[in-house]
Amino acid sequence: MASSDAHFFPHATAAAATTVKEHQDPQDLVYYAGWRGWIALEEKGIKYQYKEVNPYKKEQHFLDINPKGLVPAVEYKGKAIYESLIICEFLEEAYPDTKPLLPSEPISRALARIWIDHVSKAIVPVFQRLMMAQDTFKQDAAREELNVALRKFANEVQGPYFLGEQFSLVDVAIAPWIVRDYIIQEHRDFRREDVSDAWAKYAAMVERRDSIAKTESVSY
Amino acid sequence: MASSDAHFFPHATAAAATTVKEHQDPQDLVYYAGWRGWIALEEKGIKYQYKEVNPYKKEQHFLDINPKGLVPAVEYKGKAIYESLIICEFLEEAYPDTKPLLPSEPISRALARIWIDHVSKAIVPVFQRLMMAQDTFKQDAAREELNVALRKFANEVQGPYFLGEQFSLVDVAIAPWIVRDYIIQEHRDFRREDVSDAWAKYAAMVERRDSIAKTESVSY
Repeated sequence: MASSDAHFFPHATAAAATTVKEHQDPQDLVYYAGWRGWIALEEKGIKYQYKEVNPYKKEQHFLDINPKGLVPAVEYKGKAIYESLIICEFLEEAYPDTKPLLPSEPISRALARIWIDHVSKAIVPVFQRLMMAQDTFKQDAAREELNVALRKFANEVQGPYFLGEQFSLVDVAIAPWIVRDYIIQEHRDFRREDVSDAWAKYAAMVERRDSIAKTESVSY
Repeated sequence: MASSDAHFFPHATAAAATTVKEHQDPQDLVYYAGWRGWIALEEKGIKYQYKEVNPYKKEQHFLDINPKGLVPAVEYKGKAIYESLIICEFLEEAYPDTKPLLPSEPISRALARIWIDHVSKAIVPVFQRLMMAQDTFKQDAAREELNVALRKFANEVQGPYFLGEQFSLVDVAIAPWIVRDYIIQEHRDFRREDVSDAWAKYAAMVERRDSIAKTESVSY
């Protein structure tokens, strides 16, 4: 169901560091690292305590509730859940009085989940393969595959956000791979315009979103 | 989010053929092939029209609403959705007055989804790799990996079903790979008891479930 954003090193710097500082007080919900769930928390205005996780030295309490030490994770009244997109769905259900990040109609919710699934299966693994690829031939193949997958996604954007005016979990799911695409721009000849104008426009909208700017670290 | 059961050929025979025959009348919801969503429909007692999809000759109407012709699929008031586990979540949301297949507590729902995710990521692809593996070395490695993934799942079974007395989407997600394990029993030396006694007991419970027996085809 979900794909992890754990490979983005979770130490918050820049604007993100300020946001972390503002969320140190104990709360029912403790959020451990990870970007997507963090964006969702900010969008929904949920009270949370943010804890960074040092991947080389995990706290005993964290391992007690989450034996494999997986991040991102949420601790809620003593129980831990993980997987970024499962966390996002959890926040929808546990905080029904906050701003929804999924439409209300069941069929529209299913369509949103289909596109979140497209991000998890057709975009994220190809993005990672492109970053990892060493020889030019493999890089070219992965970049072309990524362009196709992003173009397909962009064709469905209602504008300004994926589902229209409402910022949703589809935007949350793709956001880290938009904001981090400077890596493949610098090292893998990726250009947003090569995907499509629609993609370039959408990507620019998403990275300007407040909840994303507030949680973005310059380094990772 | 979801992993497909499309590789099970969707022609219904035996008990499943009878169930198909009983669901030929037009309904708001049309269900196209696929096993997991079908189990969910039967569990929830939702009115549906069942249509088989001939993979070599797809109906024009089906392709009009679902251009890539993906199965399993649901047509609901003229719109199509696909991906078996997204369909299951859709049925939960579109038919709130039917028997729920997820618990009501948000944290329990999230835990259920984590285990559904385990089925999609750690069980189904390994099962398929085991079926495909030609040389003995690869077969042994895949079988051992499958045993480990199933054992981990079995350790969490509350009994008799995954979440306890309530039959849930976790059971629906794993069911096709329980009922079809005779293939790897016959050809790949798989034995339920080699996983664990807990697994053997759980698997026997699931395959006896009415909704599963009613939708099972002897051949595929």
